[in-house]
Parts: sequence; C-alpha cells; structure tokens
Amino acid sequence: MLTRIDHIGIACHDLDTTVEFYRATYGFEVFHTEVNEEQGVREAMLKINDTSDGGASYLQLLEPTREDSTVAKWLAKNGEGVHHIAFGTADVDADAADVRGKGVRVLYDEPRRGSMGSRITFLHPKDCHGVLTELVTSAAVESPEH
Amino acid sequence: MLTRIDHIGIACHDLDTTVEFYRATYGFEVFHTEVNEEQGVREAMLKINDTSDGGASYLQLLEPTREDSTVAKWLAKNGEGVHHIAFGTADVDADAADVRGKGVRVLYDEPRRGSMGSRITFLHPKDCHGVLTELVTSAAVESPEH
Repeated sequence: MLTRIDHIGIACHDLDTTVEFYRATYGFEVFHTEVNEEQGVREAMLKINDTSDGGASYLQLLEPTREDSTVAKWLAKNGEGVHHIAFGTADVDADAADVRGKGVRVLYDEPRRGSMGSRITFLHPKDCHGVLTELVTSAAVESPEH
Repeated sequence: MLTRIDHIGIACHDLDTTVEFYRATYGFEVFHTEVNEEQGVREAMLKINDTSDGGASYLQLLEPTREDSTVAKWLAKNGEGVHHIAFGTADVDADAADVRGKGVRVLYDEPRRGSMGSRITFLHPKDCHGVLTELVTSAAVESPEH
C-alpha cells in the first residue's frame, strides 16, 4: 500500500546551483547527497516534512553524470523540471507486483537501489497518464516478507 | 516558512478517467472535488498522507474547463503530466513577499483562491529551474497577521 509522497524528482543541469537556489529561496537544506552510478545521476535530497506513516517527503534534485543516462536524455528533450514523482510503501515488491497485475508496465524485473539505500522501481509514464511514477521502500522500513 | 509538500498538480485530459486510474491502481480515494472558474479547471484532490506541520499532502488532478485556461494551453504543449508542485506555509503573503524580494517573479499581486478555500500564489518556472511552483496556505491554518 502506498502511504506517502516520498519525493518529487527534479532534473537539473547543475546540482550545486540548484541546491543553492532551494536553500537561498526557501531555506531548504541538503539532507543527503550521493552518486547513483547505475542511474547515472548525482543527487541531493532536501527533506521537506515528516509524514504520518513514519517516513518523510523530500525534493530529490538530479544532475546527470553521463550523457546516456535517462535523466540526461530527458533534460535534453524537456529542459529542467519535474522528472518523476515517488510514492512510499513498506513493500515495494508487493506493490510492484500488484500494479503489474493491473496492466501497468513496471520498468524493472526486480527493485533496484535508490537514494539512501532504498529499493525502488518505476512505472511506465504512458501507463500513468504521463507521469513517470516511482515506488520506493526506504531502508529504514523493514518489509516483513523480504 | 514552507513546511510541507502540499500537493503535486497533475494535468489530465479527462478528470474522471484519471481519478479512476489512481483509485484502481493505487487505492487513492477522492478527498475533495471542485471547479475553479478563475483558474479554468475542474479538479480532484486525493489525500496521500498527513504531514508533520499539521497539514497534508495531496495529488491534485486538473482538467481544463476552457481552452484559454493556462492548464489547457500547457496540456496542448506538453501532454498529460506533472504541471506544478506546491509547498504549504502558514503565511503565503509573507513567503510570497520574501521570495519576491529575492528576485523570483511572483505571478499574482495578491494571493488568489485555491483548492478547498486555500490562498495561493505561483512563482515563475523560469526563476525556479523549470518548476512551476505554488505557495499555499490552507483554509484550516489561521495566519496571525491576515
């Protein structure tokens, strides 16, 4: 079951400049940074609020690290902006199987590593009214079946 | 001060179909619907979680009601997808003045009426790294100065 807006993924050309925009404009601070080689992104997580399911909601700022990454291709086509949205769940495996069973294309056979040790998968935007949608189970949440 | 992700605004061609997608796929239920004639949209709010500032985070599904509305024009250009993101604050007037003072273009001289009796304004996406950004004070939160 999806229990929170986990994050909004925002693609940018320059992570440091964009982090500074969010800090200077709104006072949002960096909670975590990492490079995800598999996804081809350098990212910063800005924590905005805690959520009623024991998790939190973040902005995830994404800068591509290589030109063949999906985010680099997306930026070349669309320019900077909202790249995806992510819903949090205690059990990404179960929810991915559930939505796959309903005919929504799930982009990974098995969840992959996301921010801060989370496990993530993506749903095809064409099956989700144009919204690239991520499902995420954070590392802090133990999923009983896995 | 911005204290939560208030909502993600998603533009769609057909509100009923999109509401049904979110219900059938994820179990998200409609919390509120309304028509905002000024904005030229029919909308549904799907509540996803409560937030640590006493508010909540929603998906806001938006269908244009007339062809000259900003959402209709946006849909014609971009197709369905994430139209804007909104941060919640107890005092939209103060935060709008603050970001205006930092050189970000605020689209309204005074906040206007948003979903569920809230007061909202928008920031120019070109000043926000491509993200159309809304600031919102919900009707339930009393702002001491206004």
